[in-house]
Amino acid sequence: MKHGARNQLTAKVVEIKKGTVMCQVKVEVSTPATMCSVMTLDSLDDLGIKEGDQVNVLAKAVNVLLATE
Amino acid sequence: MKHGARNQLTAKVVEIKKGTVMCQVKVEVSTPATMCSVMTLDSLDDLGIKEGDQVNVLAKAVNVLLATE
Amino acid sequence: MKHGARNQLTAKVVEIKKGTVMCQVKVEVSTPATMCSVMTLDSLDDLGIKEGDQVNVLAKAVNVLLATE
Amino acid sequence: MKHGARNQLTAKVVEIKKGTVMCQVKVEVSTPATMCSVMTLDSLDDLGIKEGDQVNVLAKAVNVLLATE
Amino acid sequence: MKHGARNQLTAKVVEIKKGTVMCQVKVEVSTPATMCSVMTLDSLDDLGIKEGDQVNVLAKAVNVLLATE
Amino acid sequence: MKHGARNQLTAKVVEIKKGTVMCQVKVEVSTPATMCSVMTLDSLDDLGIKEGDQVNVLAKAVNVLLATE
Repeated sequence: MKHGARNQLTAKVVEIKKGTVMCQVKVEVSTPATMCSVMTLDSLDDLGIKEGDQVNVLAKAVNVLLATE
Repeated sequence: MKHGARNQLTAKVVEIKKGTVMCQVKVEVSTPATMCSVMTLDSLDDLGIKEGDQVNVLAKAVNVLLATE
Repeated sequence: MKHGARNQLTAKVVEIKKGTVMCQVKVEVSTPATMCSVMTLDSLDDLGIKEGDQVNVLAKAVNVLLATE
Repeated sequence: MKHGARNQLTAKVVEIKKGTVMCQVKVEVSTPATMCSVMTLDSLDDLGIKEGDQVNVLAKAVNVLLATE
Repeated sequence: MKHGARNQLTAKVVEIKKGTVMCQVKVEVSTPATMCSVMTLDSLDDLGIKEGDQVNVLAKAVNVLLATE
Repeated sequence: MKHGARNQLTAKVVEIKKGTVMCQVKVEVSTPATMCSVMTLDSLDDLGIKEGDQVNVLAKAVNVLLATE
């Protein structure tokens, strides 16, 4: 299956914590990868980043999807 | 600043592509990191994953936020 | 009320499962509908889809909003 | 590939509109399907929905992912 | 129409910027309001916030929906 | 830290409700602020809004991130 998500990382499941409806899965990423963020031009200007700069990549856990092959 | 996002990776900006309203920023992640996904218990059962399993971590680029220190 | 979401489907609630903070609502969609996905051009190229192709439409349950009239 | 998204619909691509960075893909869903929404219990109480009720299912196009087999 | 979104603010449109596919709408919020964030307990512990504390509320523009009555 | 989120509001925590995995944090916003929504041009046309119009700003609680300084 091919999917339209720009970000795909290979990881290993290290912890699963279960609630009544939801659960939280922690994974370890050890392989280098290219990631992608889409934002407004206004945000880019505010951040003032350019090629070569170091940045932090943030994502809420609810917006991260896991898949198996 | 401390934030409530479970996923934070250190990365280097490698490409910026600008549109009229939006832009796309590609970054390279080379440092190992722990990530986290929140899903329903039903999804976990469907995936059938357990600790030690290898998974793919997917995220749409629009849900990835960049920050600088 | 008019809203700016591109995707609106009519459905019937078939199951509600409650946790302490969150709950999960399953609904059945039986009416044909037009849906819409926004992605990067890079994603479109990777997917290689064109008009007439069959695709799977995926969405995380946390990003689906229910409304009543 | 198996993925952890609760919502999966089969659809046919009917229109692709390209911008500089982003694009918009319209699809037609004609097969009945079960969908799922996760919300807070407070939202459920406000909505006041119960099994058998008719609801509208909303999702922003940016949170809809397409995949091919 | 009633909807299941915890966050609803009244605002005035102050600027619209159009691209080819997407557009950006700036609004001004002047009425006090209650907002709501759902996160993992782990995030709450990391943030270390308690009732009475001051926080910043962040949201990506792509996850903000506008509606009219 | 600077971040790429268009929406940032100052608020005070008024209630924290804890589940097993997730928690819900209610905050009060009392300071006027500029917010931003990104949508498709099609959505803008459907909404039919223009500068000066009053709108409702909606966001699901799972897509709202809290941060402290």
